[in-house]
Amino acid sequence: MELLDETITRIEPQDKDTRARAHRRLESLVMPYWALGRLLDLAEDLAGMTRSLHPSVAKKTIFTMAADHGVAAEGVSKYPQEVTPQMVAAFVSGAAGINALARQAGASVRVVDMGVAADLSRLFAAGKILSRRVGPGTKNIAKGPAMTRDEAVCAVENGIEIALEAADDVDVFGTGDMGIANTTPSSAIVSVFSGRPAADVTGRGTGIDDEQLIHKVSVIEQSLRVNRPNPKDGLDVLAKVGGFEIGGIAGLILGAARLKKPVVIDGFISTAGALIADALCPRAKEYMIAAHRSVEQGHRAALELLGKQPLLDLDLRLGEGTGAALAMNFVEAAVRVLTEVATFDEAAVSKAR
Amino acid sequence: MELLDETITRIEPQDKDTRARAHRRLESLVMPYWALGRLLDLAEDLAGMTRSLHPSVAKKTIFTMAADHGVAAEGVSKYPQEVTPQMVAAFVSGAAGINALARQAGASVRVVDMGVAADLSRLFAAGKILSRRVGPGTKNIAKGPAMTRDEAVCAVENGIEIALEAADDVDVFGTGDMGIANTTPSSAIVSVFSGRPAADVTGRGTGIDDEQLIHKVSVIEQSLRVNRPNPKDGLDVLAKVGGFEIGGIAGLILGAARLKKPVVIDGFISTAGALIADALCPRAKEYMIAAHRSVEQGHRAALELLGKQPLLDLDLRLGEGTGAALAMNFVEAAVRVLTEVATFDEAAVSKAR
Repeated sequence: MELLDETITRIEPQDKDTRARAHRRLESLVMPYWALGRLLDLAEDLAGMTRSLHPSVAKKTIFTMAADHGVAAEGVSKYPQEVTPQMVAAFVSGAAGINALARQAGASVRVVDMGVAADLSRLFAAGKILSRRVGPGTKNIAKGPAMTRDEAVCAVENGIEIALEAADDVDVFGTGDMGIANTTPSSAIVSVFSGRPAADVTGRGTGIDDEQLIHKVSVIEQSLRVNRPNPKDGLDVLAKVGGFEIGGIAGLILGAARLKKPVVIDGFISTAGALIADALCPRAKEYMIAAHRSVEQGHRAALELLGKQPLLDLDLRLGEGTGAALAMNFVEAAVRVLTEVATFDEAAVSKAR
Repeated sequence: MELLDETITRIEPQDKDTRARAHRRLESLVMPYWALGRLLDLAEDLAGMTRSLHPSVAKKTIFTMAADHGVAAEGVSKYPQEVTPQMVAAFVSGAAGINALARQAGASVRVVDMGVAADLSRLFAAGKILSRRVGPGTKNIAKGPAMTRDEAVCAVENGIEIALEAADDVDVFGTGDMGIANTTPSSAIVSVFSGRPAADVTGRGTGIDDEQLIHKVSVIEQSLRVNRPNPKDGLDVLAKVGGFEIGGIAGLILGAARLKKPVVIDGFISTAGALIADALCPRAKEYMIAAHRSVEQGHRAALELLGKQPLLDLDLRLGEGTGAALAMNFVEAAVRVLTEVATFDEAAVSKAR
């Protein structure tokens, strides 16, 4: 709990003065006023986060957090649980969606075992993945809490440690997830924080049919009835209806915020992690960049809770960090506009009449 | 007229067989069905355009077409006409928005003088810009046609030639524009093709106020009354209420389509050019990729006429090709997904139950 408390204490708001200086530069660039719209908003944010008019964004890393979920036993996913370690192997081999998109964006991918229900020690020993296991998958939230409160703290602190250890190697953090059944705890989390019924914030995940969706909603309703998570207490929500990778993502976000570095939030599961981080430390929001709006039903509500407008809306629903990788291009683009575009005066271009 | 006619004849539809093969591969990738949504649609399109399951997209160039507009004399823009050549100089110096964003996307920028009302011969002689001047700016569309029909053909054929000459150097074309007052002819074009009143498709361009907007709408209404462009005749619309750069953009698009190469359409002015290209050859649409939805009021209607859903919606309204540059990242990302991601079988991952 010490690392978590210390981290929360150390998270500072964006720097207003640097933001203001960036704003003045951006509004004097050789273009009609604020003509690059949300790219300029992002540039201003990045200056405020990093305290710099030349934010470093060269070193970009997506941390893809993997874990399993006891609630998979309820048949809430189209895929068997063995897919979680199989996808970890695919990430390591470089052949998954996140690998292709991270390469496009010039980002690295680090895969983290937060608690996969399989033995990944060979991949860890070979240096292919990070290991921050909290346990061999969570318990079934339809029957009781996903994890103990101590395990929830451990998951979040593991995420913080990953961020702090990467401090010298990463300018821009990205979140990602892998875990069969993990839209179920994510919908439960969004339901708790938004106060909306499970049916409003539950989607088809990997592609379940109407009947399976009705079942999934009932499983989430049951998990909320059985566990009664307290929306005022982020650790309680994580412990009762969360997941190890969701806790790890929350911790990664808090760690990035502590380091005064931007963190690009991927899709639905990552946003559930962001909601936990927000519940623990609302100031952390100032370092979050919402990558995209997922197809997943509850994502809109989750982003609204954070007050974040996503950069992209491309009907993605893969996770892994794929949306975050795509959005990394905009982080770099925003910084290039801030640092490489001349002002009207510098370019000797006539101003508006 | 020969080059235009020949080009229209030679534009073929996308290749259905390659599209089908791409579709089969994309739906077997190691992810839930079509989980990268519109990125997969784009990958399928790129395969159909290029007739390849490994579309070449390494060489990306934005052609920023510049020209002046007689209608600037009506006071429809916030900026004086001298800004057009000043911005051309900024593009050449590498200090404008398009330069920064093209660098981010790994794209080149070629600036084309389609008819700027200034002497740019030194920049041309120094090899800094292409020169395809149709004239020293169009005539005032509030008083009569922007150009003769021959000049309209010349503008479009100049654009086609630029594309054909770049055939070996460019895998992916991008459009861009610069021309003070050019949202005015663009709104006129959208009004003609959509049948909507000018007020519905006219926006604030570089940022005019309410009173100036009312005036701009009345100027566009007058241009339509005076000229009566025929929506069935793309050259008539271009000649009567268009612009030299808009014709050049239309030609570039037709040339790209003839080459079976994708062309990323930037914002409002580029989409007006795309509407001219579409009127001349509807098949050309199969090679167009809509980059973004601009703030400019008429852009939504213009994209609907083309049946195109844009990739981005970031409140951009700069033009120059900036939205096309940002969208180039997605073209590359789509191809990486098509070519670098394994199938379930290749990755030995269990399929859905």
